[in-house]
Amino acid sequence: MDTPQYPHVSSIDTPALVIDLDAMQRNLQRMQQFADQHGVRLRPHAKMHKSAVLALQQISAGAVGVCVQKPSEAAAMVAGGVKNVYVSNEVIALSKCELLARLNSGLAVQNGRISVAVDSLLGIERMAQAMESLGAQAAASAPMDVYVEIDVGQGRCGVPPGMAALALVLAISQRSCLRFAGLQAYHGRAQHLRTAAERRAAIAQVVQQVQHTKAALEAAGISVPLVTGAGTGTFMHEAASGVYGELQAGSYLFMDADYAANQADPAQLQFEHALFVKSTVISRSSTATDDRAVVDAGHKSHAIDSGLPIPWAGHGADWVFSNGGDEHGILRGSHLPELGDTVWLVPGHCDPTVNLHNQMVGVRGGLADGYVERIITVDARGALT
Amino acid sequence: MDTPQYPHVSSIDTPALVIDLDAMQRNLQRMQQFADQHGVRLRPHAKMHKSAVLALQQISAGAVGVCVQKPSEAAAMVAGGVKNVYVSNEVIALSKCELLARLNSGLAVQNGRISVAVDSLLGIERMAQAMESLGAQAAASAPMDVYVEIDVGQGRCGVPPGMAALALVLAISQRSCLRFAGLQAYHGRAQHLRTAAERRAAIAQVVQQVQHTKAALEAAGISVPLVTGAGTGTFMHEAASGVYGELQAGSYLFMDADYAANQADPAQLQFEHALFVKSTVISRSSTATDDRAVVDAGHKSHAIDSGLPIPWAGHGADWVFSNGGDEHGILRGSHLPELGDTVWLVPGHCDPTVNLHNQMVGVRGGLADGYVERIITVDARGALT
Repeated sequence: MDTPQYPHVSSIDTPALVIDLDAMQRNLQRMQQFADQHGVRLRPHAKMHKSAVLALQQISAGAVGVCVQKPSEAAAMVAGGVKNVYVSNEVIALSKCELLARLNSGLAVQNGRISVAVDSLLGIERMAQAMESLGAQAAASAPMDVYVEIDVGQGRCGVPPGMAALALVLAISQRSCLRFAGLQAYHGRAQHLRTAAERRAAIAQVVQQVQHTKAALEAAGISVPLVTGAGTGTFMHEAASGVYGELQAGSYLFMDADYAANQADPAQLQFEHALFVKSTVISRSSTATDDRAVVDAGHKSHAIDSGLPIPWAGHGADWVFSNGGDEHGILRGSHLPELGDTVWLVPGHCDPTVNLHNQMVGVRGGLADGYVERIITVDARGALT
Repeated sequence: MDTPQYPHVSSIDTPALVIDLDAMQRNLQRMQQFADQHGVRLRPHAKMHKSAVLALQQISAGAVGVCVQKPSEAAAMVAGGVKNVYVSNEVIALSKCELLARLNSGLAVQNGRISVAVDSLLGIERMAQAMESLGAQAAASAPMDVYVEIDVGQGRCGVPPGMAALALVLAISQRSCLRFAGLQAYHGRAQHLRTAAERRAAIAQVVQQVQHTKAALEAAGISVPLVTGAGTGTFMHEAASGVYGELQAGSYLFMDADYAANQADPAQLQFEHALFVKSTVISRSSTATDDRAVVDAGHKSHAIDSGLPIPWAGHGADWVFSNGGDEHGILRGSHLPELGDTVWLVPGHCDPTVNLHNQMVGVRGGLADGYVERIITVDARGALT
């Protein structure tokens, strides 16, 4: 179906970030179904796709809202119509807290909300100050949901598991403009532990630390409304724990080469690659010492923080991609593609790859012979603050 | 000087990409002076700053134009008023060649031009076809300058040095819409060879290969109008060679941590750090096992393809930055900064760092106590095609 309105995939200029919409849709439904079957909420992480329309698609399918990492991402989601956004990260600057307070107030009339994570008394103090600057009535009628983050092995943000959370929870409880919403417990590095056994063991530790924290809070008379966390590598373990009530997986929607390098867990849901970089061979060299094809996609097209991209399996080729710099990639192997040929690449890491692009090209009917159905704007591209 | 019109550096929200305008200006002048003293042209690479206003500043100081890597970058430069742009890279897609042909035609009336590199007969054929589609008169009155690229050690694009260039030069010469402008000879990997001796030796090899190619062409009766190449790590050697007529260095304007890791060559011009990521401490953890400060800048704020960022020397601290993921950085060391404190970082690699941002904040008067003088739009942000 090649019409001016629905151009054939072959007409997409390169490099381009392309979504296989059929695979994406299956991934979306597969994860929502899993969450429903396990009686847990799904709050996909929008730091991955940074697109309000995709967040809304996830919410239409049953997600409770989305997560983001930065206040400016929250603003982009809200501007795009998303009504429930959780900033699963610490916010210290008063101006950022004020932004979140204003967004929360605006969403309240639509039954929506902003929530935020804290791991310090200063963070709580600043958020309360920002809420109160809205005016006492506004602040009290739509309190900000606040999650206390515990460090469950990431070694980054969060207070240590156990008693440390109590002081923060008490500080939140003393402010009518804030509401203790639960615990944020995400182990980022566990997501890419390569063996299924390692991931299982890591989350078993995480769950222990969460339970230890819950017990400390309950001993002080505080119940924990919700535990939220998990990622695409481990979510089945959090879901099965009986402790987590909400999953924040994000990458499952698109997947990437780094996740593909994880040893699959037979018990784990499989997701399909739905994100690709379309590239073109712009140079071809066959000398006594080297046979190579150079494509026009380098690390300004696909993030390499977690490894280089891999050629799409659909090429049925043995090509190996090596780093050609910002704007080039070098392929070696047999039956290399020729000048002008298309090469589809699976990016190493989906989140920062999306962040390199202003838009994503949504293709229906597959990479080989599909057509462009829609352009998806990366609304929160470069939303770092 | 803290006024609403010129806010103090402390008011810049984080993370932000900040230019020390005073240091940048000194770098700009230093390189132009060097080129002038050595009788070579300076054509700075705009793939680095991707900003038309900075390109125009460099041209005002004496640069002949700029280089880019992609046709869409050329379009952004031209839209911003730059009249002389060389796409120092191969272009195969007819639609891209047509874009360049149209840009070239539009610039001709303003005494400007687009030039492009080739390393294949197909590339030459496509460029000629694109030029002829403008109409024979347009094409012939403003021919496209074409450089033949030779592979001088990078192992990426380019034909082998020597006789291989002849077929391409002859093909160019047969088309009235194209003009053989010279040789493109850039050794990217030599730029970051760590010792001065290695860089010197690498360029000595490069120069030999260029001379070998020139000799082969001259033996066939073809003179080479210009040899263009060089980068911030090696430009003094190309300049001293007597063979290069144009330097394409780009990074010198801003510098980065990867260049700072090069052992300085006593004979080499020194450039100053002018590019920084401003970040804020959002989490602070001091346990029995770890003392760390987490800032809000991760690899969505600064590219890590060539290494992690380093804390600005002006902090006078021993802090070591470790990878905290897309949106976090982790500092360890003595006298760590506290919650809400500012941490200035020197990015690992300037080019792809700029490409992560929509704008750069130009600060006058230094990082410690300066003020925001101007916002510089990254015009070619994400210009990959």
